[in-house]
Amino acid sequence: MNKKVMLSCAVTGAGDTTAKSPHVPITPKEIADSAIKAAKAGATIAHIHVRDPETGRSSHDVKLFQETVERIRESETDVIINITSGGGGDWIPSQEDPTKGGEGTDIQTPEERHEPIAKLLPEMCTIDCGSINFGNMLYVSPTDWLEKQARLVQESGVKPELECFDTGHIHFANNLIDKGLIDGDPLYQFCLGIPWGAAADAETLSYMKSRIPANGRWAAFGIGRMQMPLVAESLLQGGNIRVGLEDNLYLKKGQLATNEQLVDKAVGIVQSLGSDIMTPAEARQELNLFTP
Amino acid sequence: MNKKVMLSCAVTGAGDTTAKSPHVPITPKEIADSAIKAAKAGATIAHIHVRDPETGRSSHDVKLFQETVERIRESETDVIINITSGGGGDWIPSQEDPTKGGEGTDIQTPEERHEPIAKLLPEMCTIDCGSINFGNMLYVSPTDWLEKQARLVQESGVKPELECFDTGHIHFANNLIDKGLIDGDPLYQFCLGIPWGAAADAETLSYMKSRIPANGRWAAFGIGRMQMPLVAESLLQGGNIRVGLEDNLYLKKGQLATNEQLVDKAVGIVQSLGSDIMTPAEARQELNLFTP
Amino acid sequence: MNKKVMLSCAVTGAGDTTAKSPHVPITPKEIADSAIKAAKAGATIAHIHVRDPETGRSSHDVKLFQETVERIRESETDVIINITSGGGGDWIPSQEDPTKGGEGTDIQTPEERHEPIAKLLPEMCTIDCGSINFGNMLYVSPTDWLEKQARLVQESGVKPELECFDTGHIHFANNLIDKGLIDGDPLYQFCLGIPWGAAADAETLSYMKSRIPANGRWAAFGIGRMQMPLVAESLLQGGNIRVGLEDNLYLKKGQLATNEQLVDKAVGIVQSLGSDIMTPAEARQELNLFTP
Amino acid sequence: MNKKVMLSCAVTGAGDTTAKSPHVPITPKEIADSAIKAAKAGATIAHIHVRDPETGRSSHDVKLFQETVERIRESETDVIINITSGGGGDWIPSQEDPTKGGEGTDIQTPEERHEPIAKLLPEMCTIDCGSINFGNMLYVSPTDWLEKQARLVQESGVKPELECFDTGHIHFANNLIDKGLIDGDPLYQFCLGIPWGAAADAETLSYMKSRIPANGRWAAFGIGRMQMPLVAESLLQGGNIRVGLEDNLYLKKGQLATNEQLVDKAVGIVQSLGSDIMTPAEARQELNLFTP
Ligand SMILES: [Zn+2]
Ligand SMILES: [Zn+2]
Ligand SMILES: [Zn+2]
Ligand SMILES: [Zn+2]
Repeated sequence: MNKKVMLSCAVTGAGDTTAKSPHVPITPKEIADSAIKAAKAGATIAHIHVRDPETGRSSHDVKLFQETVERIRESETDVIINITSGGGGDWIPSQEDPTKGGEGTDIQTPEERHEPIAKLLPEMCTIDCGSINFGNMLYVSPTDWLEKQARLVQESGVKPELECFDTGHIHFANNLIDKGLIDGDPLYQFCLGIPWGAAADAETLSYMKSRIPANGRWAAFGIGRMQMPLVAESLLQGGNIRVGLEDNLYLKKGQLATNEQLVDKAVGIVQSLGSDIMTPAEARQELNLFTP
Repeated sequence: MNKKVMLSCAVTGAGDTTAKSPHVPITPKEIADSAIKAAKAGATIAHIHVRDPETGRSSHDVKLFQETVERIRESETDVIINITSGGGGDWIPSQEDPTKGGEGTDIQTPEERHEPIAKLLPEMCTIDCGSINFGNMLYVSPTDWLEKQARLVQESGVKPELECFDTGHIHFANNLIDKGLIDGDPLYQFCLGIPWGAAADAETLSYMKSRIPANGRWAAFGIGRMQMPLVAESLLQGGNIRVGLEDNLYLKKGQLATNEQLVDKAVGIVQSLGSDIMTPAEARQELNLFTP
Repeated sequence: MNKKVMLSCAVTGAGDTTAKSPHVPITPKEIADSAIKAAKAGATIAHIHVRDPETGRSSHDVKLFQETVERIRESETDVIINITSGGGGDWIPSQEDPTKGGEGTDIQTPEERHEPIAKLLPEMCTIDCGSINFGNMLYVSPTDWLEKQARLVQESGVKPELECFDTGHIHFANNLIDKGLIDGDPLYQFCLGIPWGAAADAETLSYMKSRIPANGRWAAFGIGRMQMPLVAESLLQGGNIRVGLEDNLYLKKGQLATNEQLVDKAVGIVQSLGSDIMTPAEARQELNLFTP
Repeated sequence: MNKKVMLSCAVTGAGDTTAKSPHVPITPKEIADSAIKAAKAGATIAHIHVRDPETGRSSHDVKLFQETVERIRESETDVIINITSGGGGDWIPSQEDPTKGGEGTDIQTPEERHEPIAKLLPEMCTIDCGSINFGNMLYVSPTDWLEKQARLVQESGVKPELECFDTGHIHFANNLIDKGLIDGDPLYQFCLGIPWGAAADAETLSYMKSRIPANGRWAAFGIGRMQMPLVAESLLQGGNIRVGLEDNLYLKKGQLATNEQLVDKAVGIVQSLGSDIMTPAEARQELNLFTP
């Protein structure tokens, strides 16, 4: 258990959740405001996706990222910005020709996925370390694309967070490191409980953390009702933590949450177990971040 | 450690290995002969792919499966036949349009993948339980396709072997069971050491086996130089085993192997550790197999 | 993670702690009062040792146990009473003759250890499942003594809690079960973090729980500053929990605790993670307890 | 899996085994001859106890150690000598006074246990890292005795092998290191399958090896029918190995073994898995041994 941990708030995500909760922020202003409130409640890092203000669905529009980031930066609240570069990876085979993507397919190239990172130079961004069945959809990230993307991130000077949805993703992330594509001490994010990825429990976390190099740092989160349990479990096993509406909509059964409420609850759990949350300044030092 | 274990020989596979070893069987006759020799050396189960006799590359031609299976059945050597239903799952994004499969793509629908099973009714067949980055290629098996395929296998009465390349595949396999799509005690095959899937070592095996239901049976194999170590490790941890040229070409460093040599070596390891190999008859009883 | 867990409060223990905290109860009245307050704060079970009212040191005097138990029973607060039968097990070799116990030695026979159980017939009692170096002292519990003691407990109808300080103790407990000396579903208590026993962390707990039979129930606790972390960890891994001044004197660094404060804090952690505490009535049903 | 592993042969031990097998060596000449044959069969290290030539029971007589060691040294066979310093640790409570050792008790002080080491200065010796119930007997090694003994070993320049029978023993060994009582990279021996210590299986080994410091080396063995399985398991998990009549009397069910047969079988297992055995010279370099 660390004396202090980094707490990420994943404020909106890419899922079709806006109809399920009025608290999921949609417009750049809403997303920025929610990130700022989360930071005020104690979040060290704000993990950012953007949404189409008309439809509420996931968007890759760099202008939306830009407005969101600028609003956060212009606020007086300090928080480390972590922009998704998962981008368009959804693939569903066409009924007519199963070699082609059909309805629901949304694939961006590595260069397209990297665009908001290159443009906005946040302190951090994610890299999703492999392909996987994501519920009924296929998340597509071939290895040569990922290597290209890692190189782009490296050149930009942004600190990558290596998102791993299953154990093979960790091995691939380690391979990126071996190939010299990740600078500094690597940072992993174990994304747990997603069908059909790694499970959200103590044994899985223990196994996954055992697979990273000695100079690695890591965080973990669980989705849905496993969000708060994973806050405790990750903390207890020596990792950093993440909450937010990207991963879970409820404060408790039947009660919809805001991001700041989820952050507040996580802070309480951390403190009750005898640890505390890092400030953005402390995390910058820990991760050796610098403004790119 | 079990008193007796089932030993599969995966005689040829689908990889581009024919140029690397003259022992990889190509024609139906070669594949059948190699399976028969493997059985005589002690293999309980012969796991069968077929290859284009002209090019040596993987084929989905049912006639090739048919000739291979008939040759094995007509021999006087008893062995359980396990036909792949992994079929065409290779997908590589096109350079022009990344939503489409480009060169190297080979995708079959669930119905097409099931065709040799439906036609030949072997005692066993494989089901690959998810999509994954397979080296630089993407192996595509969306969840709705897999459910369709599981239902086809169930209707055919063939015993499925649930191939899991990472931990999420196990959860998906368990979900197939929960949905009533797998009859009898489920049988898992943990496929270890493939980039970018689960690792080939004691901890990974221990973790994976802990994820299956109480009535589950399992086997595991490692690829390349981890083939024999995984024979021992799987045996020691209570599982069944697999060797063969699909997974590894070498008897030891620098010395190319035949299937029967790999089987013979595995039998020696098993016996030196105080266990023994099941006959096909014993495995039929253990797995409650019946001729469909 | 269980929907509800049993929460034990170990109110005083046998350690030389009375000089370190004014909150450690000493007299039967103090111990009973503290147990009652702990129960009111939410404890399901009160785990009881007694102390010499003059010296504050551990006592085996049955009259002290009797007064303590009667005071709790006569109160209007319901709580399951769990009396230690660890009894006298301290052994330190004599300087003159190392085959003999020297100063600090306090050894009771199995019959003597069982005396308060036999006399007071609490709903539960502990059985320590082996010998071990306990700091600089040797805790002596030979196997034939333990078998004798288990038989006495069995005949009394009291539910034993099988205390395990290391992994071999679990195997011994399992052996008691195999020999028919434990009735009903067995209940284990993993006592973690004691020098020189098993460690207080996620991996150790995960390993230990994997060693008990399918019908086993378990709890775990950590000593000192690991008390609250183990509340969360045990809960998250599916176990029951324990706090109290026997194991830890502090609410947080530098702040001495009462038993009821420790219970209150544990209740808060459990609830923040989405679970809740069993009432004594619920625990009686869960453990199939009956008044002997 | 290491390319090469150290293979210890524990040639005779202290158990009452001489009536069970005619191959258990008793006299110094028999023990030395058996060690020499084991070395010729491939053993890197000979682990030595001595026995009373009259009764065949365990002896602490330094003259017997001396004759045994001299006979090995005078032979032309190179082997690293590892003398037990477990010495007299058996304690069974007296029927009359349970604070005193009764019949079967055999307790030596740290100084007495160290005597053969001090006198003969072998390259290696064992240190048993705690007390434990050993079947129906109590093996007594209080922590202050062990610290004293570790200091004596350190002063003698002999390389200690830290024998751990359960997980708490590892923590204690680590504590010896923290206190500066172990020079160089520490070497652990995990002694598995003894009632009532840690179990002899993959998960236990995996757990135990995870508890040692980064510069630690380790070996493991299993007793009885788990001897050969643990040879494979320890090798596969990256450890060194041990066989010999101290731990197991049988080559296979019903067939009594000699030490050299057990060594020969272990060598075969190691080689079939693609590894090999270190020579004494290689092990000296690996462990940085020097003639004290
Ligand atoms: Zn995201
Ligand atoms: Zn195959
Ligand atoms: Zn107690
Ligand atoms: Zn020994």
